[in-house]
Amino acid sequence: MADSQLPHHPKPETPAASAPAEGETKNASKNALKKAAKDKAKAEKAAARAAQEKAQAAAQDANDTAKHLYGPIPEKEDVIPATRFSDLSEEHYEKEVTVVARVDNARVQSAKLAFLMLRQQGQKVQAVIAAAEPISRQMIKFTGGLNVNSIVQVTGTVKKPEIPISSASISHLEIHISKVYMISEAMQMLPMQVKDAERPPPESTEEGVDAEGAPIVTLKTRLDNRVLDLQTETSQAITWISSGVSQLFAEYMIKSGSRWISTPKLVGAATEGGSGVFEVKYFKRNAYLAQSPQLYKQMCIAGDMESVFEIAPVFRAEESNTHRHLTEFSGLDFEKTFRGHYHEVLEFAEDLLVFILTQLKERYASQIATIQKSYPKAGDFKLPKDGKALRMNYMDGVALLKEAGVDVTEQENFENDFTTAMEKQLGQIIREKYDTDFYVLDKFPMSVRPFYTKADPTDKRFSNSYDFFMRGEEIMSGAQRIHDIKELEESMRAKGLEPNQEGFEDYLNAFRQGCPPHAGGGLGLNRIVMFFLGLPNVRLATLFPRDPQRLRP
Amino acid sequence: MADSQLPHHPKPETPAASAPAEGETKNASKNALKKAAKDKAKAEKAAARAAQEKAQAAAQDANDTAKHLYGPIPEKEDVIPATRFSDLSEEHYEKEVTVVARVDNARVQSAKLAFLMLRQQGQKVQAVIAAAEPISRQMIKFTGGLNVNSIVQVTGTVKKPEIPISSASISHLEIHISKVYMISEAMQMLPMQVKDAERPPPESTEEGVDAEGAPIVTLKTRLDNRVLDLQTETSQAITWISSGVSQLFAEYMIKSGSRWISTPKLVGAATEGGSGVFEVKYFKRNAYLAQSPQLYKQMCIAGDMESVFEIAPVFRAEESNTHRHLTEFSGLDFEKTFRGHYHEVLEFAEDLLVFILTQLKERYASQIATIQKSYPKAGDFKLPKDGKALRMNYMDGVALLKEAGVDVTEQENFENDFTTAMEKQLGQIIREKYDTDFYVLDKFPMSVRPFYTKADPTDKRFSNSYDFFMRGEEIMSGAQRIHDIKELEESMRAKGLEPNQEGFEDYLNAFRQGCPPHAGGGLGLNRIVMFFLGLPNVRLATLFPRDPQRLRP
Repeated sequence: MADSQLPHHPKPETPAASAPAEGETKNASKNALKKAAKDKAKAEKAAARAAQEKAQAAAQDANDTAKHLYGPIPEKEDVIPATRFSDLSEEHYEKEVTVVARVDNARVQSAKLAFLMLRQQGQKVQAVIAAAEPISRQMIKFTGGLNVNSIVQVTGTVKKPEIPISSASISHLEIHISKVYMISEAMQMLPMQVKDAERPPPESTEEGVDAEGAPIVTLKTRLDNRVLDLQTETSQAITWISSGVSQLFAEYMIKSGSRWISTPKLVGAATEGGSGVFEVKYFKRNAYLAQSPQLYKQMCIAGDMESVFEIAPVFRAEESNTHRHLTEFSGLDFEKTFRGHYHEVLEFAEDLLVFILTQLKERYASQIATIQKSYPKAGDFKLPKDGKALRMNYMDGVALLKEAGVDVTEQENFENDFTTAMEKQLGQIIREKYDTDFYVLDKFPMSVRPFYTKADPTDKRFSNSYDFFMRGEEIMSGAQRIHDIKELEESMRAKGLEPNQEGFEDYLNAFRQGCPPHAGGGLGLNRIVMFFLGLPNVRLATLFPRDPQRLRP
Repeated sequence: MADSQLPHHPKPETPAASAPAEGETKNASKNALKKAAKDKAKAEKAAARAAQEKAQAAAQDANDTAKHLYGPIPEKEDVIPATRFSDLSEEHYEKEVTVVARVDNARVQSAKLAFLMLRQQGQKVQAVIAAAEPISRQMIKFTGGLNVNSIVQVTGTVKKPEIPISSASISHLEIHISKVYMISEAMQMLPMQVKDAERPPPESTEEGVDAEGAPIVTLKTRLDNRVLDLQTETSQAITWISSGVSQLFAEYMIKSGSRWISTPKLVGAATEGGSGVFEVKYFKRNAYLAQSPQLYKQMCIAGDMESVFEIAPVFRAEESNTHRHLTEFSGLDFEKTFRGHYHEVLEFAEDLLVFILTQLKERYASQIATIQKSYPKAGDFKLPKDGKALRMNYMDGVALLKEAGVDVTEQENFENDFTTAMEKQLGQIIREKYDTDFYVLDKFPMSVRPFYTKADPTDKRFSNSYDFFMRGEEIMSGAQRIHDIKELEESMRAKGLEPNQEGFEDYLNAFRQGCPPHAGGGLGLNRIVMFFLGLPNVRLATLFPRDPQRLRP
C-alpha cells in the first residue's frame, strides 16, 4: 500500500516500516506509549525513555541547522496566507506555497528522505522532504514521524512529479517541503484510519480485513467515530449536498414570498398519536416532542401568514431499525394558501423539488462525482426532461403494479397503503416507462391519510393528498387540509379522535375563527440526500444520526 | 368607535348597535347562540329560532334579485384574480377589483346601506354596499351581518371617498361592493377582537377596559389566542422581521462559504450542566435535549468542515420567568476555523451582525414603521456610523460603570459577570458616549466562562471570549475554543468537571485526533428581534412562546 502511493520514487532497498534505522528509536517509544495507555507501570518506563530521548534530542539540537524550520508552530509569527488544495494548479509549479492540512500518511524513506501525504477536506496532495542545506536529518525524522491525522502547516515549492502520483487526488504536483510546523497533534493510535473509511461500508456488520488485506470499517465503526469519518472526501461531499438542500429549499421559499417560521418542538399534548411521540419531563408536568410542525404551520396560516416554511428537527419515537428510519431528522416543511384548487400548491411543490434537484446537479457536480466513486450502484439521478414533475393518481400507480403482476387487492380495497417493496417496484416501473427517478402520486385513499386531510369533493373515498417519491421511496407527504371546522370535527371522529380531547383546543379554535383554504407538505432532508445520491443508508446522509440504538456521538 | 371608522358618511339617526331594525333579528339570534354555548336548553330554543329565521329567509329568497351575488362561494366558479391590499392605488379608481380579506367589522347602517371594514394581513380597507338594482335588501343584511373575522371574497368598484377614511390603513379609497361571498365563516363570539390586540399589551396583567372604554387585552390573553393575535398588523410585521433575521443570517453564512448543518437535539448525556437540561424518555433509557449545538459544532470543525452554521431550536430547562427568558428559542449558531488570531472570527461575527441589522432596516423599513406605531418608546435602533462594530474589553466596560458610580467590586475581582441591571446601564452609557445600540465586549474573565473557552495566553485571568449586546442586553456569547486536548482536560478539571465523565468521550476524542484552532458564537434570534424593535417582552418576538408556565398554544 505504502509503495503504491509513491510510484515515481525509487523503491527503498529496505522498506522503512521493517527496517529500524537511526530515526526509529521514536517508533519503539511509540509502541511503549501505546501499551502505556492501559498499563500505568509501563507508562513510567516510557516516560523515562522519553526523557532520555529528549536529552538526546537536546544534544543533537545544538548542531541542528533546521531548528527554526520545524516543530511546534511559532506563536508570534505573522500568518502566511495559505493556499487551498482546490486552488492548486500547474500555475504553482516552481513557486512557494504554504498549506494547512492533515497528515494522511507519513513515512521515513531513509535518513535523508521522507514523504507526507497531506489531506485537506478529503483531497490529497503529496509532499516530500529531502536532506539538503539547511534541512537536517532531525527535521526529516520529525516530518516522517508525524502522527497520522495531525494538522500541520507546510511551506514548500510546488514541483511537477516525474509521473503522476496516483494515490493523491491532485496527482500532477507535489510539494517539496522547506518548513513544517505542528498546529494540532493527533494521538498515535486512532480508532480507525480515515483512509480506510474512504471505501464504502460493507453490507455486513463484521469487522476484519477485505480481500486485499485492507481493514473493513463497518458502518457502526464509522458512526462511532463520526468525526474521523466526516474527514473523508465522500463525507465532505455528502455534507455539502445536505447543506445545499437546506439552502435551495430556503432560496425557493423566500423567492416565492414565503415567511420563515420557527414553531415549538415542546408541545403540551401528544396530538399526533401517542405511541410515536417522545415524552419530556417539563418542570412539574409532561411535555412531548413535536412529531411534525403540522398543526403549528396550519395555525400560522389561520394567523394570516399566507405562506410559511420551516427547517427544523422532527422527532419520531418509532422503534424502526431500518436503513431509512431515524428518530430525529431534518424536516423541510411548508404550508400555503390557495384560492381555486389545491393543485396550485401541488404544482408549487413539484416545481420546488425540480428546482432543488436540478440545482444540486448544477451547483454540486464535483461533490456528486466524488460520491459516485464510492457509491456508483444507483447511477445518476434521473429528472424529467421537460422540467415538470411526472404526476399520476395513486390508483394509476396501483394499476401499473397490477399490470406487472403484483397482488394489489388490499390497495384496490383501500385497506392499506403501498408496502415499501411495492413502492420500490413502482419506482422501477416508472423509471423504465417514463425515464425519471422523481414523480408524484396524487389522490391517495382517504383511509390511509391523517384526519386533517381534505377528502376529494368529487369522490369521498379519495383525498386531495399526494406523496413525492425519489427512486421509489417516499420523501414527502402532503395534502390539502380541511379548513372548515365542522368538516374537521367530523373527520376526526371518523378517524376515532375526539375533538374535545386535550391538546386540540387551540388547533380547532383556529378554524372556528376563520381559516383560508390551504395545502402543504413535509419533506425529509436526510432522505432527499440519501435517495438523490443513491446511498445505501440514511445514516450516511446524517451528520450525527439518531436511532433507537444510537444516541452518540 | 363604530362611527369614528366612517367619518365621511352621514351619522345614522340612531346608531345601529343600539337600534334594532329590520335586519336585527339576527342579532337577537346571535345573543341566544352565545349563551347556548354554556346552556344546552337555551341552545334548543335558539335552534328553533334559527329554523324559523331560515324559513323566513327562504320565503324572501323567492324575490331576491341578488341571490347569485352573495352567500357561500360558488364551488365551480372560475377563480377571479384577487388584488392584494398592498397593490391597491389611485390607479384602481372606478375600476372593478376582487379582494380576499377578513371582516374586521361589519355594520348595517340602514336597510339600504351597510359597511364592511376588510382586513388583509393587518391592513384595512373599507367597503360599502348600498341597495340599488340588482343589490337586494337581503344582500345588504347578509353583508352587514357577517361575523367578524370571517374570510370573504368581495368584488366591487374602487371609489375615492369624499374624505379619507381615517380608521382604514388605506384611507384614500373604498370598495363599492357588487358581490360578496363567504370563504370561511368565523364563529360569532371570538375570545378577543383582533382590533383590540392592535394596541400594545399593558404592563399590568389585569383585564378590563382602558380610559377610553376599549377592552384591555393582556399579554396572556394575546398569547392564549395567538392565532388571532398573529393577525394584527404589528404581529404580521414582527413575524416578517423574525423571518428576515433567519434569512439574513443564512445569506451571510452561505456567502462566506460556510456549510449548513443540523446537529442532534437528542443527546445521550447532560454534558452542559444537569440542572438546565430537559430529560426525555428514550425507549428504555433517558436522553436529554441539547442546550446548544456547542459540542457538535466543534466536532464538525474537528471533522474538517472549516466553517459551519445552524439555525435550530435550543432548549433551556431554566425556571426563569422574566421578560427575556424562554425554555425554547431559535438559536443561530456558527463555528469557524482561523489561522492567526481569534479576532479574525470575532470580526467576521461583528460584520455578520452589522449586516443583519443594516439589512433589516433596509429591507423591512415599512414593517419597522408599523411596529414603531405600537412600540415607539425604544426609538430607532442605532448602528455604528462607520459600519464597523464598537468593540471594547470587558474591563473597559467595568471602568465605564465605575466612572458612573456603580459598585463593580465583584467584577473587578472576577467574582461575577455583570448583572442585567449593570448591562443595561452600560448600554445607556455607551449609547450616550458612542451613539450606538450595538457593541461588543471582548476578553471576559475566565472565571465567568464555560470550560471550553480558551484562556488569553498573555493573561490567564482573562479569556479569548466575547459577548454581543443590543440596547444593553446580551444577544450573543462566543469565544475561541480550546483545541488542545491537554489544555481542555485541565480546563475541565479547573471548572470541576471530570473528563472521564459519561458523555464527554466523543467530544474529547475529537481533539485527541487533531483539531484546528477555531472560534464561534451562538445568537438568540428571538432576542435580536426583541431588542432591535425595542419590544417589552421576548414572547412578542416568538411565534408560539414556551416558558415554565406556557406549553400552549
